[in-house]
Amino acid sequence: MKIEEALEESKKVLTQKRYDHVERVTETAINLSEQYHGDHYRVGLAAALHDYAKDMDFSILKQWIVDHVDLPKDLLNYHHEVWHGPVGAKMMERFFMIHDDEVLNAIRYHTTGHKHMSLTEKIVFLADFIEPGRDFPAVHEARKIAEKDLDRACHFALENSIHFLISKKQSIYPDTFFAYNEFTDQLTY
Amino acid sequence: MKIEEALEESKKVLTQKRYDHVERVTETAINLSEQYHGDHYRVGLAAALHDYAKDMDFSILKQWIVDHVDLPKDLLNYHHEVWHGPVGAKMMERFFMIHDDEVLNAIRYHTTGHKHMSLTEKIVFLADFIEPGRDFPAVHEARKIAEKDLDRACHFALENSIHFLISKKQSIYPDTFFAYNEFTDQLTY
Repeated sequence: MKIEEALEESKKVLTQKRYDHVERVTETAINLSEQYHGDHYRVGLAAALHDYAKDMDFSILKQWIVDHVDLPKDLLNYHHEVWHGPVGAKMMERFFMIHDDEVLNAIRYHTTGHKHMSLTEKIVFLADFIEPGRDFPAVHEARKIAEKDLDRACHFALENSIHFLISKKQSIYPDTFFAYNEFTDQLTY
Repeated sequence: MKIEEALEESKKVLTQKRYDHVERVTETAINLSEQYHGDHYRVGLAAALHDYAKDMDFSILKQWIVDHVDLPKDLLNYHHEVWHGPVGAKMMERFFMIHDDEVLNAIRYHTTGHKHMSLTEKIVFLADFIEPGRDFPAVHEARKIAEKDLDRACHFALENSIHFLISKKQSIYPDTFFAYNEFTDQLTY
């Protein structure tokens, strides 16, 4: 599947507003991929498909989690915001026969992050955080860091996600904590 | 062991400054215990001994973690600040033959919190956070909440601990996350 075809598939199932976001994430991710020597095709494909399941009814996402043994059931204990990544990755396998773990993991973990993120995962995760349509206090700082250091920018995004979720009194999916801890241990400031 | 004897034991191994803190935590914990119908003796004993290992050399704490199979080895991957609780609880077993899990857990988890905290654990955890010698921005709010709702006060303390650790670029012991998530799920605001 070409990146352009992937964008077309996303367009079919997303609102215009969401699709515009996906286009911006894809462009941002491809730019980051050039900067950090990523895999252009895998990064572009994962970015183009990362929100495929995002506008689907929560009951559909829930049913996929219940029905697929390899989707972690603990997702159901957390905010539905964390469902569309893992379910989207599963849909990519079923609908488009994508079996490349590098691509699937970048879709799967784009909301939460996780431990041992690959280059492709980091790029898609960060592109989703800093794409030009985003407008929140920390995004300007995140974009600056992204120009210089991919890992620090991911770390910064994770820190901000945790602060944000706490401010919203939401529980935090453990993968996010583990990703934060791993970057914290690896980076020196 | 009487609470007064426990305080004497702590005095023997702590700096004067730390011992003063322990006295204030004990008094605060006993007050909270009256307010929330806790077990006066267990709360007082745990509070009086909670920082027993805190002024010991890190190399001693490390050796205890290495030497005792039931002390989690992953502690060594985190800041030494989280070592003195679990090691202190183990010392209480070995030195003073304390085998009451309610007391031991309150000592063990007073820094990190953990999932399924007992009433005694919550009281000691919170007393350590709000004792009158503490002076940081969030403590005033924490004391106010503690007057009304023990769980919300613990939740608030955990939120602040996570914010603080992130601001210090420190990794966060998983028990703290799990405690935060549990209170978040149980409480409605």
